[in-house]
Amino acid sequence: MTMGLKTFDDYYNRLKKMEPNLYLGSEKIKRTDERLQGGIRIIRETFDRAHDVEYEALCTATSHLDDQKINRFCHIHQSMDDLLSKQQMTRALCHRVGGCIQRCMGIDALNALSVITYEMDEVLGTEYDKRFREYLKYFQENDLAASCAQTDSKGDRLKRPHQQEDPDLYVRIVESRSDGIVVRGAKINITNTPYADEIIVVPTRLMTQQDNDYAVAFALPSDAEGVKILVRPAFQHKRKYLKAPIANIGDGEAFIIFDDVFVPQERVFLNGKDDPRQTPYAGFLALLFAHFHRHSYTGCKPAVSEVLASAAALVAEYNGIEKEGHVKEKISHLIGVAELVFAAGQASAYRAEKSPSGTFIPDEILTNAGRRLAGEEIYNEYKVVADLAGGLVATLPFEEAFYAEEIGELANKYLKRNPRIHPEKIHRCYRGLENMLVSDLACVMQVAGLHGGGSPQMETITMMGRYDLDSLKSIAKYLFGIEGSLAMYDRKTVTPRKMLERFRILLRGH
Amino acid sequence: MTMGLKTFDDYYNRLKKMEPNLYLGSEKIKRTDERLQGGIRIIRETFDRAHDVEYEALCTATSHLDDQKINRFCHIHQSMDDLLSKQQMTRALCHRVGGCIQRCMGIDALNALSVITYEMDEVLGTEYDKRFREYLKYFQENDLAASCAQTDSKGDRLKRPHQQEDPDLYVRIVESRSDGIVVRGAKINITNTPYADEIIVVPTRLMTQQDNDYAVAFALPSDAEGVKILVRPAFQHKRKYLKAPIANIGDGEAFIIFDDVFVPQERVFLNGKDDPRQTPYAGFLALLFAHFHRHSYTGCKPAVSEVLASAAALVAEYNGIEKEGHVKEKISHLIGVAELVFAAGQASAYRAEKSPSGTFIPDEILTNAGRRLAGEEIYNEYKVVADLAGGLVATLPFEEAFYAEEIGELANKYLKRNPRIHPEKIHRCYRGLENMLVSDLACVMQVAGLHGGGSPQMETITMMGRYDLDSLKSIAKYLFGIEGSLAMYDRKTVTPRKMLERFRILLRGH
Amino acid sequence: MTMGLKTFDDYYNRLKKMEPNLYLGSEKIKRTDERLQGGIRIIRETFDRAHDVEYEALCTATSHLDDQKINRFCHIHQSMDDLLSKQQMTRALCHRVGGCIQRCMGIDALNALSVITYEMDEVLGTEYDKRFREYLKYFQENDLAASCAQTDSKGDRLKRPHQQEDPDLYVRIVESRSDGIVVRGAKINITNTPYADEIIVVPTRLMTQQDNDYAVAFALPSDAEGVKILVRPAFQHKRKYLKAPIANIGDGEAFIIFDDVFVPQERVFLNGKDDPRQTPYAGFLALLFAHFHRHSYTGCKPAVSEVLASAAALVAEYNGIEKEGHVKEKISHLIGVAELVFAAGQASAYRAEKSPSGTFIPDEILTNAGRRLAGEEIYNEYKVVADLAGGLVATLPFEEAFYAEEIGELANKYLKRNPRIHPEKIHRCYRGLENMLVSDLACVMQVAGLHGGGSPQMETITMMGRYDLDSLKSIAKYLFGIEGSLAMYDRKTVTPRKMLERFRILLRGH
Amino acid sequence: MTMGLKTFDDYYNRLKKMEPNLYLGSEKIKRTDERLQGGIRIIRETFDRAHDVEYEALCTATSHLDDQKINRFCHIHQSMDDLLSKQQMTRALCHRVGGCIQRCMGIDALNALSVITYEMDEVLGTEYDKRFREYLKYFQENDLAASCAQTDSKGDRLKRPHQQEDPDLYVRIVESRSDGIVVRGAKINITNTPYADEIIVVPTRLMTQQDNDYAVAFALPSDAEGVKILVRPAFQHKRKYLKAPIANIGDGEAFIIFDDVFVPQERVFLNGKDDPRQTPYAGFLALLFAHFHRHSYTGCKPAVSEVLASAAALVAEYNGIEKEGHVKEKISHLIGVAELVFAAGQASAYRAEKSPSGTFIPDEILTNAGRRLAGEEIYNEYKVVADLAGGLVATLPFEEAFYAEEIGELANKYLKRNPRIHPEKIHRCYRGLENMLVSDLACVMQVAGLHGGGSPQMETITMMGRYDLDSLKSIAKYLFGIEGSLAMYDRKTVTPRKMLERFRILLRGH
Repeated sequence: MTMGLKTFDDYYNRLKKMEPNLYLGSEKIKRTDERLQGGIRIIRETFDRAHDVEYEALCTATSHLDDQKINRFCHIHQSMDDLLSKQQMTRALCHRVGGCIQRCMGIDALNALSVITYEMDEVLGTEYDKRFREYLKYFQENDLAASCAQTDSKGDRLKRPHQQEDPDLYVRIVESRSDGIVVRGAKINITNTPYADEIIVVPTRLMTQQDNDYAVAFALPSDAEGVKILVRPAFQHKRKYLKAPIANIGDGEAFIIFDDVFVPQERVFLNGKDDPRQTPYAGFLALLFAHFHRHSYTGCKPAVSEVLASAAALVAEYNGIEKEGHVKEKISHLIGVAELVFAAGQASAYRAEKSPSGTFIPDEILTNAGRRLAGEEIYNEYKVVADLAGGLVATLPFEEAFYAEEIGELANKYLKRNPRIHPEKIHRCYRGLENMLVSDLACVMQVAGLHGGGSPQMETITMMGRYDLDSLKSIAKYLFGIEGSLAMYDRKTVTPRKMLERFRILLRGH
Repeated sequence: MTMGLKTFDDYYNRLKKMEPNLYLGSEKIKRTDERLQGGIRIIRETFDRAHDVEYEALCTATSHLDDQKINRFCHIHQSMDDLLSKQQMTRALCHRVGGCIQRCMGIDALNALSVITYEMDEVLGTEYDKRFREYLKYFQENDLAASCAQTDSKGDRLKRPHQQEDPDLYVRIVESRSDGIVVRGAKINITNTPYADEIIVVPTRLMTQQDNDYAVAFALPSDAEGVKILVRPAFQHKRKYLKAPIANIGDGEAFIIFDDVFVPQERVFLNGKDDPRQTPYAGFLALLFAHFHRHSYTGCKPAVSEVLASAAALVAEYNGIEKEGHVKEKISHLIGVAELVFAAGQASAYRAEKSPSGTFIPDEILTNAGRRLAGEEIYNEYKVVADLAGGLVATLPFEEAFYAEEIGELANKYLKRNPRIHPEKIHRCYRGLENMLVSDLACVMQVAGLHGGGSPQMETITMMGRYDLDSLKSIAKYLFGIEGSLAMYDRKTVTPRKMLERFRILLRGH
Repeated sequence: MTMGLKTFDDYYNRLKKMEPNLYLGSEKIKRTDERLQGGIRIIRETFDRAHDVEYEALCTATSHLDDQKINRFCHIHQSMDDLLSKQQMTRALCHRVGGCIQRCMGIDALNALSVITYEMDEVLGTEYDKRFREYLKYFQENDLAASCAQTDSKGDRLKRPHQQEDPDLYVRIVESRSDGIVVRGAKINITNTPYADEIIVVPTRLMTQQDNDYAVAFALPSDAEGVKILVRPAFQHKRKYLKAPIANIGDGEAFIIFDDVFVPQERVFLNGKDDPRQTPYAGFLALLFAHFHRHSYTGCKPAVSEVLASAAALVAEYNGIEKEGHVKEKISHLIGVAELVFAAGQASAYRAEKSPSGTFIPDEILTNAGRRLAGEEIYNEYKVVADLAGGLVATLPFEEAFYAEEIGELANKYLKRNPRIHPEKIHRCYRGLENMLVSDLACVMQVAGLHGGGSPQMETITMMGRYDLDSLKSIAKYLFGIEGSLAMYDRKTVTPRKMLERFRILLRGH
Repeated sequence: MTMGLKTFDDYYNRLKKMEPNLYLGSEKIKRTDERLQGGIRIIRETFDRAHDVEYEALCTATSHLDDQKINRFCHIHQSMDDLLSKQQMTRALCHRVGGCIQRCMGIDALNALSVITYEMDEVLGTEYDKRFREYLKYFQENDLAASCAQTDSKGDRLKRPHQQEDPDLYVRIVESRSDGIVVRGAKINITNTPYADEIIVVPTRLMTQQDNDYAVAFALPSDAEGVKILVRPAFQHKRKYLKAPIANIGDGEAFIIFDDVFVPQERVFLNGKDDPRQTPYAGFLALLFAHFHRHSYTGCKPAVSEVLASAAALVAEYNGIEKEGHVKEKISHLIGVAELVFAAGQASAYRAEKSPSGTFIPDEILTNAGRRLAGEEIYNEYKVVADLAGGLVATLPFEEAFYAEEIGELANKYLKRNPRIHPEKIHRCYRGLENMLVSDLACVMQVAGLHGGGSPQMETITMMGRYDLDSLKSIAKYLFGIEGSLAMYDRKTVTPRKMLERFRILLRGH
């Protein structure tokens, strides 16, 4: 065992030791609570596969800090290949849990911080990068699982943070001390926090000079004093007879309250209150985390499409309709979406550029285009599977009925479809489809597929904010005879590196 | 109280007295089981509104049998106005329960039977119409709620009933007696049976002369001997503090097994085994029930779209984004779908024709076009609401958390959005949205919105089977100079009456 | 021949006598110019069918002014049936010309004026209604064909008329005289003006009190002094061998310049310059013309879909692929759109209400929902036909090649497809498809299908402007427990009549 | 000037010398005919840019035959970079001509032949590769422009070639001689042949052992004896005042008749008549040309989307609406499609594998997914531009009107929109939009965008034919507990190389 690569047991033992600050309804629960096991089962996959010879190459990396072998979820992308491997790892693990692998938030937050802390030091002469590297070393050595808490409760959506009636509706620094800061506020819609080691907090939007107190980023153990986590778990009905991986997974969403929480200096990575020059980096960090996270979606969402396509193909076979034209058309649509979204992330990785910090940043517009297609299609994908499965996914009697004395045999008799397929397989298939399509968790996955990492609306905004439309218009100006010549047009030239350079120039002008 | 109009209590007392033949998992449960109360609450609406002065005109009708005032759900459409009222009643009641009103299956089955029994008597000289009228009289006098059981378990979908390895995979007559028939098989995906008085069984497809045993229709009390109902209930989390209609509704789906059930002659309405001349009417009845049922969907599905649009508009207001262009665009899309689907059903009613039996039949192709649009859009509609609501619908902490001592006040503090809206209202709104979008029941509604009454694929098949394409081609032939003249083209001329006439001619030719 | 019903020859003789004020490029052309014959051929249909026994009932009406039999295109809707007949006539005639029948603009403008002139008289005590009736009498007696000129050139779209740098960018009154007014400006995108008898001018938008000069409506002979019509014709390649109706049709679009044109008082129907109390009626008239015109689209657009579906079905037969699943799916989609859009207009007519003027106004939101669907689908419909036709529609050698000595026989040899179909029929079919899909005129039809009567964006705005969202929200408020009860919700209650009443109240408050 | 790189003049001089075998209608025309200049102008771009320092790196390559510098359109892809450069070149040149660059057919056919000839030699011991290399050398040295003629006239689409009533409906070998073969038949829908040097003929589908005579591939000068080319040109209206690149382009489609044409042995590359063992390669060649050609579409179609987006952005600016939400949404959609389709081709190139012949073959399923999205979107893209441009694109008076004495000044006056934009620019913009959206050529581009390289239907078939669904199903089987473990799933493992290997095994088994 290398120092930086831990096991699921190591992780689970850490969870056991944490302070109880989880609230489920009015109950205070432990991190080992039965209702969180589904989420923990997912995180387990990220540890187990790093020790699995088939997945090891994908799921581990070599730390640029000390050349130690680490879990890829703790790694800062040092190359194009790192981005490609991260995308492929995400896809492969999502196949195994039938959806979101949940641990990507940590790696995405760390990568965003790696760029921003370096940038601030370069431009402002701060010493965040060193601080971040020390935190990262600790993170990698312990193979930590982190949540990234970005979305504030936001109050009135048409007002900026400092304009809200209640000043706490965005997380803010309420006190600065020599040894750290005190923060107050709430972050909502945060996946996996109930069973994460760490919470990394980043801003949710651009901050102006009136919003200095809100320009803050930091990391905390998720059981830090004053942190109160309201849990919204989702899990499948317990199976008694037909055990299946899909029935074991679950989700824990968090509504995190920071009730005047102290953060020591060494864990603060952005502080606009004490140094307003840092405030502009809040928006940059918000955007960059979103960017890395959307790139992760180009790994997980193709997997979700493939999981759905897989189920669609299986039930079509079991129903004996797989040769029908409309069935092929529908399955090929799911496959096509998977291919296109994955290709968007892959090509974004190939176009990635090394930022001054050394971290590789994938192409921004293409990543957003990929994530957007995924978001636009998610409900339609569920529709396709429901279409091919038929109404039984929503009407299937409970599992025990098929094993009950008086009715079990009859129930199974009438489950027969394709006569070459044993009724138990058909039962397993529909039981799994029920988990996939007709359950609390199914709905959570739909909403996450739409909103996770930013809804299609957000990607449209990002794309239009970044795309160089003037340059695009030069094509029509040339063709229409409004301008005499056309320089070779290549949208790619608006690279992440240029984006950083522009940002520096902008800030120097401040 | 008129004789034919009963109250919810009358109905509920009947349920209490029924034989226990419901199975929930391995449990045998009563019809008054807590987990069925959500479905019963919906049926209640159909009784209560018939006695509600505001709804009475819509929800009652005058029986053509005896001029008694009856619940419209027991009525045979005697006019265009009846069809229009049925559609409008369906819509109005669905608004009140936030979705499917469930009792339409009975009225749709009765109307289909009213046409077919008359037709058979006319052509074959049988005496079904009298038998049916007697059953109808009993039905109307007692204000019964019925399920219509159509979908067989169907086995291998590429084989006809008689070709299946197991001959029981479609419901069939296994024995003919002088006093009745014995039936065996199963009907699946049947809504509301666990709390319906009656089950009306109709065929699921066209039957050939090899399938005579499967050409069968009948009605039974839902607790008849040998009937075994496997229940799949769906219901919302119980609320403790924030009571709301949406939290009280539910659904009970049935997997009905006919374990050699005796049906007395007076309740048999189609019997191809004893009289193979009746077999062709199986397909006709299957089609006609589907047709009336799809017309009912042009009432309920617009209501579902409006319920979703209503929630979308409300949460947009609460989030303070209702003036945004994309928000208006999205809400107007929901509204537009509701309008178009309702208009399809309304215009179908205006084009309805009186069949020889006296029953009015709405336009077939247009009804199908309307139902299809509804089915195609259902998942997209959920997407729109989820889009405008944001991720919180899937991550909202449980209700009790907002009332818990240590965290309740903080939780409410961070729920504030539009400052003019009290946090409790926001809580109620998101709590309701959670029921609507992120729950077992939400998924059942999605699947029902897609498959109920036949999936879009089925409507396409019906439309293309009925549409007179040769006549349509005459337009292009004229315009392209292939034919010299063009008779006035009006697709409407393929009326239901013509459909019946053609069918008669076809059968006479048999 | 009744007095109010003229023939095509009457109409064409009038065209011959008109002053030459048409400009095609730099040429001044006559109204009988060859390049306008395609458009004239379309108008011909509206005269010929009124004298055709099969179409007469649909294409004529009885004037409410004098009980004369008139062409329906000159009629003010006096009943629901009038609206239904107008819609059906539009559809039937569009089938015969393969698209837009062009003369609807006149009837739609007249109906809008009939309402507004009456309203103004009621509220303001003006005497427009009498003036309008006299004009209408003249119009009906002569069976005139009119253009309605609504769209101004509009300049900077973000500025109101009076804010434009050049004050002439919306048509305005530049001088008031005792005997009439002088107008200046331009109206663009106006179909059929080059061969219309009359131009009826209405405002294009809401006018404020600063825009009084722009609040103007009037009618003029289309060759009135100072009117200059820039023509943009579209027509098909001339056929030499394979004559076909589709090859004979065409279009003439106008860019109409009012170069200080005098309009006598008896032809002025709105004048905000001289009476600013009339200014608010500008927006009302703009909206009402759009409304009647969109209702006409629920007649023509279904016909366009059916024409396209007809061609699709024919070429699918000729190509031998009509039984393929995807082909049926695609054709059924075209049919479905036709059905839904027509149903929207039909149900709108059934819901129509008599305005105080006596004119029937169809349901506004539903009409817009129908028109919008049509606009959204138009390009997709062309795609479907192109898809089923294959690339040959765009690559078909010119007609003469198939008759040329050296190559004609060979060319025909290789045109064979379905062997039961004679190559000449295949040639005719593809020749017609070329006209339909690959020609200037095809593109004009696409653009007209999108923008005519207002683009989908405009219908969305209208729908959201008119829909009573507060009332809609009451459904969710009830279901979510925010409000205790729910009044029966029926969107229809926002009727045109109520709309007029509200408008009156609004104006009185002015 | 290197030997293998020619100029436009060289090319045009060759055209001048060719035998006249072009038929336009009943005329026999020269290759320098005015009506073909638009197409020739496009081909010119491929020569000029190879000599343009800005484009040279993209538009030239080093021949693997003799290390000469050649035009990239004559090159066999020797690496991933070659595929990436080809894709990028295609995009860059399409920007300059506003659409299809037309010369890609040659390179795609050559690359397909390079693989198949090598494969046949390996497996069958033929000597095609040497023959092909000699032809390629000649092709490269002369910098030839080629058409690839694939689509047969096909007759009854449900019958195979040998089943047709007329045996000539697919191109076939009618005679074998020692020095060559004689072919008969027709190829339709072939772009650019009227001004191409060479025609490369490949099969259009899989051939069975009954279709040996139809398993044929060869190359000919396009004026070879017996070749008769029926031309269908498309071009823009001539401009007199406002010259613009878009007005100079055009298209020439060909219906090529092979009227018993002799092909010398050195130009025959597949001959199933003389050697039935070659017949299976017909389908392989058909597929492989389609594959390379679809990969070219991932270069040209993004360019088309960008050209349309560019025009949309420009006209939005000129209309002053570019900040509107719906405008941004629509433009971002065009951009997003461009990005995704390009990414599909780029990632396909990155995943490319070297075939045994040395030629690199891009990923098949992803290439098809990209091409399909492009085809599905093309009509919608035109809709978006038409939507933002408004009706004027279809109603704009002819150019001369704006310069005519009496009306020119007035016409220009009313063209003003955004006051910061000179009316001439607005005129140029709408004139260009007219070319782009409302012209014969626009329709040809729509149809080509749908069908070129195979319609979406074909890509669906290819995708479903190639995708390893059994492997995909393993995901659901694992998740549903039907199978105990899941091997790491990666769709990419079905590489082109594996495809070739499978094909070899298959053929050996023959």
